[in-house]
Amino acid sequence: MHVTIIGAAGMIGRKLTQRIADTGGLSGQPVTALTLADVVAPSPPEGFAGTVTLEAVDLSDPATAPRLVAAKPDVIIHLAAIVSGEAEQDFDKGYRINLDGTRWLFDAIRAQKDYCPRVVFTSSIAVFGAPFPERIDDTFLTAPLTSYGTQKAMGELLLQDYTRRGIFDGIALRLPTICIRPGTPNLAASGFFSGILREPLAGQEAILPVPDSVRHWHASPRAAVGFLEKAATMDTAPIGQRRALNMPGLSATVAEQIEALRAIAGDKAVALIKPRPDAAITKIVEGWPQDFDPARARTLGFEAETSFEQIIRVHIEDELGGRIA
Amino acid sequence: MHVTIIGAAGMIGRKLTQRIADTGGLSGQPVTALTLADVVAPSPPEGFAGTVTLEAVDLSDPATAPRLVAAKPDVIIHLAAIVSGEAEQDFDKGYRINLDGTRWLFDAIRAQKDYCPRVVFTSSIAVFGAPFPERIDDTFLTAPLTSYGTQKAMGELLLQDYTRRGIFDGIALRLPTICIRPGTPNLAASGFFSGILREPLAGQEAILPVPDSVRHWHASPRAAVGFLEKAATMDTAPIGQRRALNMPGLSATVAEQIEALRAIAGDKAVALIKPRPDAAITKIVEGWPQDFDPARARTLGFEAETSFEQIIRVHIEDELGGRIA
Repeated sequence: MHVTIIGAAGMIGRKLTQRIADTGGLSGQPVTALTLADVVAPSPPEGFAGTVTLEAVDLSDPATAPRLVAAKPDVIIHLAAIVSGEAEQDFDKGYRINLDGTRWLFDAIRAQKDYCPRVVFTSSIAVFGAPFPERIDDTFLTAPLTSYGTQKAMGELLLQDYTRRGIFDGIALRLPTICIRPGTPNLAASGFFSGILREPLAGQEAILPVPDSVRHWHASPRAAVGFLEKAATMDTAPIGQRRALNMPGLSATVAEQIEALRAIAGDKAVALIKPRPDAAITKIVEGWPQDFDPARARTLGFEAETSFEQIIRVHIEDELGGRIA
Repeated sequence: MHVTIIGAAGMIGRKLTQRIADTGGLSGQPVTALTLADVVAPSPPEGFAGTVTLEAVDLSDPATAPRLVAAKPDVIIHLAAIVSGEAEQDFDKGYRINLDGTRWLFDAIRAQKDYCPRVVFTSSIAVFGAPFPERIDDTFLTAPLTSYGTQKAMGELLLQDYTRRGIFDGIALRLPTICIRPGTPNLAASGFFSGILREPLAGQEAILPVPDSVRHWHASPRAAVGFLEKAATMDTAPIGQRRALNMPGLSATVAEQIEALRAIAGDKAVALIKPRPDAAITKIVEGWPQDFDPARARTLGFEAETSFEQIIRVHIEDELGGRIA
C-alpha cells in the first residue's frame, strides 16, 4: 500500500508517520511506500522498511496537487491547513490553502484515469458555531463562525460530492481540539488548552486567556492518530453518504482540566497557570462547541479518552518519557 | 436605490423585475436604477420609471463580476445558476457557475472600497439530503445528494463568512421547489412537479415520472418574489449569523397536487397526467426533503401558500389571465 501524507511535517503528520514506521502499516495492512509532503520537506521516519519519498510542496500552487497524485497512492491523508487564528487574520491565505488547495487536490485525483483512492481529510469541530444544543448530535448544522471553519465545512461538502460521484472514497474527520499538543504553540486560537497543561508539566508558566468556566471538546494526539489510521483503512460502506464524522472526544471545562493537572502534578504545577484574559481569543472560543454525542463515529468504532487525567498521562508517556518536572 | 439582478432573464428574475417596475420599488423603498444581467441580455421591464441597464454577461468569466459590481449597487440579487439536472450532468459547468461564479461575485464586492451592499442569494432545499426527520427544522445539517445542492451549500457558507467579516450584508434563501413554473420545462429534475399541473391546465398532456406518493415542499412564483423582495429590504439584525434561511412552503404529495387540480379543473384535466416512471428522476427526488418547520423564516415574516389549490389559483391568475383550458 502506498500512503501519501500531505501536511506530514505537522504534529499529527509526524506522529502518524512514526506510527506507520513502527508497525510497518496501518491497522495491520502493510505500507510499502510513503510519500511525505509539506511546506518544508518532512524528516524521514525512523525504522521504516519501505520506500520513502520526501516532498517540499507549495499547496497554493495549482501545479502541486497533480504532481502529488501522479504516482496514484492508494491512500491520501490530507492534513495540511492554515490554522484558525491565521486563517482569520489572513483572509486570502486561508482560502487559498484551506479551500483552493483542497479542491485542487480533489480535482487532481479526478483527472487521473482508473483511480479511486481512499482520501482522509482532517476537518474540525470549528465547522460548528453557537448557539449550540447541550450536546451536538450527528445531524446538527454546520454554521461556522470563523473563516477556518467555513473552509473546512466547504472541503467536507466537496469531499462528499466527489465521493458520491465515485471520484474517490473520502472520509472527513471532525477532530476535537487536540490536547496536549507537544512542542511550541502554533497560531491556533485553541492553543492555550494545551499550553496550560504542557507548560506546567515542564515546570514553566502558561497563560490562560479565557475564564476557567469555558467548556470544550478534546482528544489526545494519540487518539487523533488512531482516528486517522482507522479512517485510512476501514470499510467505508457502513458510513453511507454523510462522510463527515464528528470524532469522539472528552467534554471538559478549563477548571476540570486544571483539577486533572493538580491530581497528577500537584498545586505547584497549577500555580504556574497565569490567568490573563484576552477578549479576542475568548470571543472566538465562545463560538466553539462544548459537548458532542458522536454516535455514528462510536458505532463505527472510533475511540478517544474518557478522562482528562488519561489525556495528561498520554502526554507524559508519549512526550516526556514518563516523567514530569 | 440601485438594484442589480443577476440571472434576471430567468423566470423568477423576470417576475421580480416586473414587480419592481409595477410598484416603483421593493417593499415601499423606491428603486431608481435597475441593472439586469443574464447570459442573454434581459428584456427591459414595462413601465419602469428609473434607469435600466441591460447586460449580457458570462459568469464563467472571472472578469464579469468586477464589472457588475463597479457601479456599487445597493442591492445585488444573485439568482443565476446551473439547475440541478444540468449540474449533475455537467460537473465542470456546475462548479464553474454555481460555485466559482458566486465566489467571484463575492470577491468582486470585497475588492470595492467603502462598500457593503445587501446580497440576496437564492439557495435551495437541495442543500438537504436523505435521511430526513419527519420535518426539517432550522438546525438540520446540510448533506446534499447532488452537485447542485453541494454548490448551493458552499455558496451559503461563503455568504455567511463574508457577511460575518462585514464584506457585505448577505441573506441566502433556501427556496422550496417553485410550483407552478410557467413556460416551458427547464432541465431541473423537479420540473414535473409544475408540469403535471401546468400542462393539464392548458389542455395538454403531462408526464409524471415518479410515484404519486412522493411528498415534496412547494411555493408559488409569487411567494418566491415576495421572499426576495423582503430579503432585499428587511432589517438583517434579527437574523443573526446564520444567514441561510429555510423559506416557508407547503408540504404535499403528488397525489394531493393531483386532487387539488381535480378540485379546480376537473377529471378531464387529471386524465391528461400520464404516469411514466423514470428511475433516474425518482432516485434524485427521493433524496429531497419532504416537509419543513421553517420557524425562523416565519418569525422573520416570510410567508407562502397554505394549500395547493391556492398555488394553482396563483398560476391561473398570474399566467392564464384567470382562465383555464
